[in-house]
Amino acid sequence: MDMNELLTINLPRLQAMIDVSSKIGALADGGLCRLALSNEDKAMRDIFVNWLQDAGLTVRVDDFGNIYGRRKGKKPGAAPVMIGSHLDTQPAGGKFDGILGVLAGLEVVHVLNDHHIETEHPIEIVSFTNEEGARFQPPMLGSGGIAGVFEKDFILGRKDKEGRRFDEELKRVGYFGSAEDRPKDIHRYLELHIEQGPVLEKENFPVAAVEGISGMTWIEVTVTGESNHAGPTPMVMRRDALVVTAKMISVINQLVRVLDEDLTATTGQIKISPNVINCIPSTAVFSVDVRHPQDSVRGKAISMIQEKIATIAASGGVTVSTNVIWDIAATQFSQEIISYVYAGSTAHGYPVRSMISGAGHDAKYMNDIVPSAMIFVPSVKGRSHCQEEFTRWEDIEKGVNVLLYTVQALAQKTEERVDYHADGS
Amino acid sequence: MDMNELLTINLPRLQAMIDVSSKIGALADGGLCRLALSNEDKAMRDIFVNWLQDAGLTVRVDDFGNIYGRRKGKKPGAAPVMIGSHLDTQPAGGKFDGILGVLAGLEVVHVLNDHHIETEHPIEIVSFTNEEGARFQPPMLGSGGIAGVFEKDFILGRKDKEGRRFDEELKRVGYFGSAEDRPKDIHRYLELHIEQGPVLEKENFPVAAVEGISGMTWIEVTVTGESNHAGPTPMVMRRDALVVTAKMISVINQLVRVLDEDLTATTGQIKISPNVINCIPSTAVFSVDVRHPQDSVRGKAISMIQEKIATIAASGGVTVSTNVIWDIAATQFSQEIISYVYAGSTAHGYPVRSMISGAGHDAKYMNDIVPSAMIFVPSVKGRSHCQEEFTRWEDIEKGVNVLLYTVQALAQKTEERVDYHADGS
Repeated sequence: MDMNELLTINLPRLQAMIDVSSKIGALADGGLCRLALSNEDKAMRDIFVNWLQDAGLTVRVDDFGNIYGRRKGKKPGAAPVMIGSHLDTQPAGGKFDGILGVLAGLEVVHVLNDHHIETEHPIEIVSFTNEEGARFQPPMLGSGGIAGVFEKDFILGRKDKEGRRFDEELKRVGYFGSAEDRPKDIHRYLELHIEQGPVLEKENFPVAAVEGISGMTWIEVTVTGESNHAGPTPMVMRRDALVVTAKMISVINQLVRVLDEDLTATTGQIKISPNVINCIPSTAVFSVDVRHPQDSVRGKAISMIQEKIATIAASGGVTVSTNVIWDIAATQFSQEIISYVYAGSTAHGYPVRSMISGAGHDAKYMNDIVPSAMIFVPSVKGRSHCQEEFTRWEDIEKGVNVLLYTVQALAQKTEERVDYHADGS
Repeated sequence: MDMNELLTINLPRLQAMIDVSSKIGALADGGLCRLALSNEDKAMRDIFVNWLQDAGLTVRVDDFGNIYGRRKGKKPGAAPVMIGSHLDTQPAGGKFDGILGVLAGLEVVHVLNDHHIETEHPIEIVSFTNEEGARFQPPMLGSGGIAGVFEKDFILGRKDKEGRRFDEELKRVGYFGSAEDRPKDIHRYLELHIEQGPVLEKENFPVAAVEGISGMTWIEVTVTGESNHAGPTPMVMRRDALVVTAKMISVINQLVRVLDEDLTATTGQIKISPNVINCIPSTAVFSVDVRHPQDSVRGKAISMIQEKIATIAASGGVTVSTNVIWDIAATQFSQEIISYVYAGSTAHGYPVRSMISGAGHDAKYMNDIVPSAMIFVPSVKGRSHCQEEFTRWEDIEKGVNVLLYTVQALAQKTEERVDYHADGS
């Protein structure tokens, strides 16, 4: 790749695409509600397919509703460099989450078209179905499907809250393609995404090279005390499930702060019973979401958290049970791709830092079958999964320029594809 | 009163009445659902009225649906000694809460009838409407109505969750009586009730002389932090509303335990938002119910709690607002009546202790217009407002024997009624 040709994107063109997307499922406060396989998702898919065709790409749809647009490469039989993310959103999500990664990929193709650049490898843009998991549980069904994480029948049989099946909704919106159209071989996978956290903005980096995704464990804790009338029960005779829970939440928070600076623990859900103002709570059920880039650190933290929970329950005179409801190992992305992200940032003169994603992404499952990596751009105030989610256009421009550089570098390379296994074998 | 005639109740007769009541609105686990002015409440009222008439009492119903049964006294124009409580229950309440006090009053009348005892003062049994407040808010509408705590229009216009008005439901069940039938003058008011707390059982007292009702303040606390994705937001960059709330709940709990042994503070309700497992909570709204027999102690505790809340919020980087949603002063019952409760317990050889009620009762409002007091009997494990609520029959027998003694003593006394004001004037 000739560094004399340092290409840059056409920001207004990308911005125009995002502006169109921002009207499909628009909410009052600037966000989007575009649940997977909803009418809004169908409307966006139709537009996206038109855009792919307008850019000269060959469109296909697989049996999970994933949409691909392929730009031919020079080298016969070469596997494509794939760029993608998702077009679905949370019920009150933002305009950039997922969408930016898909449309940035399309902008990269436009730039290559503008300059009549032929790459050795084909380039494929992909939009994965149901990344958010907001309508069909679990998240990342489309990428998980082609990566073999989930069985086909499992995916097609997922139901939303109203009981509507994934496959029926795929048919209804007209995007139930064929298993033949899944990717047969992929050279590299790249995903640009908003950070969804506050670090890049706070530290003034426009771009991050994402080296991996934290492993994650979800624990459900059930504390059982005794409900009594709030008035006549002296403090010393109580077995208050919420008071004990409050102590657990405080102690877990203190513990992870001292254990490791990359460790997080979050209680995002709590439910107490009977939840009546003048009744001592008899039960409290709460979640603990624990994440760390290294599985060993997370494992040690989980053990310590469970020990603390047991100790606090015993001293509070309540019983407790903990249940691991999800446990997912950490992901290490391709160092080769990361080196190009650094090189691209340097070539453009952008400050860049390495980062571990705390959140899951389609790249997580893609990394199981093909060397993958991600590029992050800053989220203002770290806001995400809310209508206030925002990323500055100047940061988007820089991030997509780095994406463009990285795609060019990967697609120009002509060496043979190396067999790849996520476990390093 | 001649101590040679130390009368005792007929427990099987009282038990038989309670057994009938326990079938009207019965739930699977031994409790009752008999909401005020429901069909079940009507069925119980009809039976109760028959029982009053069978005992030779003159029945009347006032414009709040309160039912009275009057036994004549010897002295012309003397005001009645009133005994009562309520027959309505919580949605999943117990068999004794309220019911015991009403039917114990009727048993007292039966005993006096058995022995052909005429008292100087008439005796009136009362069942107040909607004590629980489970169907129509606020609680204690019937006693509050005759005590002048609530305006008539306010009471009649109360609506349940389905929008049905109190007065329409009164008419529907056939218990919309006349304002003329409210009590015109009352000599003394007495209420026997289950403790609803664990103290009597724990300390092996079958009976308590209740000297007053704790004052109570309900505070609603709203903590506002910032919601972000649980994964990508480092612990040090968070403004987690629940973590701060957990600290507040812990600190309030520790504070009231050291301030005063009669002080209670309870968080019975909590709601966080967005309440999603992988989102840092942006807001938490929780209740604090604070009670103490002395208003000054409660007031001081409230100030300290509000200070602590403010300090914790500031150090946790969140904003907080507190809102006092209910504040009710402490009640002191009649020492004259209490002295008879002690005398009756001593005459029967029952251990008795004084107690302050942590919960509200009809006696609270009655005490505004007439010297009043209460007798408590033990609640097994302090359980209340639940189907497991239970009081042992041997304790009930003792409690009602003391009630009988106290009623006899009060109804035999012939001195003139002293004008009474709750504020001591």
